[in-house]
Amino acid sequence: MRTLTLTLAYDGTDFAGWQVQPGQRTVQGELEAALRRIGGGEGHALAAGRTDAGVHALEQVVRLRTDSHLPAEVLQRAVNAELPADVAVLDASEANEHFHPIRDAVGKRYRYVIHDGPVREVLRRRYCWDYRHGRLNVAAMQRAAEPLRGQADFASFQSAGAERASTVRDVRELTIDRLAAPGQGRAGEGVSADSLRPEDWVIMEIEADGFLYNMVRAMVGTLVEVGRGAQTEAWPGEVLAAANRRRAGPTAPPQGLFLVRVDI
Amino acid sequence: MRTLTLTLAYDGTDFAGWQVQPGQRTVQGELEAALRRIGGGEGHALAAGRTDAGVHALEQVVRLRTDSHLPAEVLQRAVNAELPADVAVLDASEANEHFHPIRDAVGKRYRYVIHDGPVREVLRRRYCWDYRHGRLNVAAMQRAAEPLRGQADFASFQSAGAERASTVRDVRELTIDRLAAPGQGRAGEGVSADSLRPEDWVIMEIEADGFLYNMVRAMVGTLVEVGRGAQTEAWPGEVLAAANRRRAGPTAPPQGLFLVRVDI
Repeated sequence: MRTLTLTLAYDGTDFAGWQVQPGQRTVQGELEAALRRIGGGEGHALAAGRTDAGVHALEQVVRLRTDSHLPAEVLQRAVNAELPADVAVLDASEANEHFHPIRDAVGKRYRYVIHDGPVREVLRRRYCWDYRHGRLNVAAMQRAAEPLRGQADFASFQSAGAERASTVRDVRELTIDRLAAPGQGRAGEGVSADSLRPEDWVIMEIEADGFLYNMVRAMVGTLVEVGRGAQTEAWPGEVLAAANRRRAGPTAPPQGLFLVRVDI
Repeated sequence: MRTLTLTLAYDGTDFAGWQVQPGQRTVQGELEAALRRIGGGEGHALAAGRTDAGVHALEQVVRLRTDSHLPAEVLQRAVNAELPADVAVLDASEANEHFHPIRDAVGKRYRYVIHDGPVREVLRRRYCWDYRHGRLNVAAMQRAAEPLRGQADFASFQSAGAERASTVRDVRELTIDRLAAPGQGRAGEGVSADSLRPEDWVIMEIEADGFLYNMVRAMVGTLVEVGRGAQTEAWPGEVLAAANRRRAGPTAPPQGLFLVRVDI
């Protein structure tokens, strides 16, 4: 069998996540079905990040094993023609047969998008956590996030169900910002055509060598507890130090989360 | 009956347009039903711009006649609690009983969003014309659009079905731009979380004292004929001068169109 690397974008809204599950609509399932329809045989797709139900991907990296002899570019177009509208192959290239997207990934970047404007968000409701309980204190969230940067045991931010051997991860970047600059606002408005009020959006960007199960959503849920004034700025650092999942805040909803990039 | 002015945002995807039609889901129908549920009686809603099926609104202006005695702000919250997720009241205020959102509107602004990137758009597919036939020549479209600015008879850009007494309109602003500036791109990326490639987006902004039925979509469809090289840059000016709808290009699809603002 031949090995390819695909870059995939998908809208997680109507998927039960990446991984094939019986009777569920999944990204892996749709991709492998599209491959069969173009005569690629019983291929197998393995993703660098197994996103959960409702989580979106801007550039997911996937290893594809297939019997197809089509040139990568032709295969990409053929698969795209067979895929449903909510998933697309952005790029396809030949890969080494030993390539393993999980083992070989040296870093991943996620984005979490929160809308905390006074009226609920209509046009981007599938792509954000529409926070309906008042303005978040972003300055407090920024200070509270400081201890969550760098190498640490993130066991407190791991959901049950998919434990990893080691819970130590290196968070290389973690920023939380409100989109308030006027220049930014105009540009955002232009592209998205619905971001009239950049001051209503809070974006968390996070990059690490790897992530535990539900880690980003648990971190967001914990920092939002600070942003809404329910916990002190010191609390997320204490949660981290406890290395105990029961200490963290609630898990933020999936529709605000985007897998931005995988570094191989 | 009392008169209020509402500002509404909606996602046009699942609506058969603004105006009530038997057996169809419309924005007016949902708004009037929400009003009845909060005890506002048999109110009536009249919009400044009667958007078609699939067309979105960022700030539609609506006159609401109602029996409700709730203060405007309380009514806004109550109606929002009853409305479905794809429509929201952004603002509500008392209005003069003689206020008429169509007659009193002195200007409107629309935006049309085209994606012409190499791979189809997944996350914003409901909010753009995903143009799948190669790159549009935006410089040619800009030059071709010049005669469409200012006061003129726009009869060529009016669809059959809702003729107006006069087809003369004053197009005060008309810009077509590709989102390519790096600064803009980063900001757009931040807000929309899916605009990784600003160079793949073409935005038309248009402001006029009023619009004929389907005027923006007919203008976009005509300019795209130039952008794809099927017609000369002089052609849209000739179409305008002919004052004959059969001369214009095809009508662009509704999901790229946004009513941005109404000036009262």
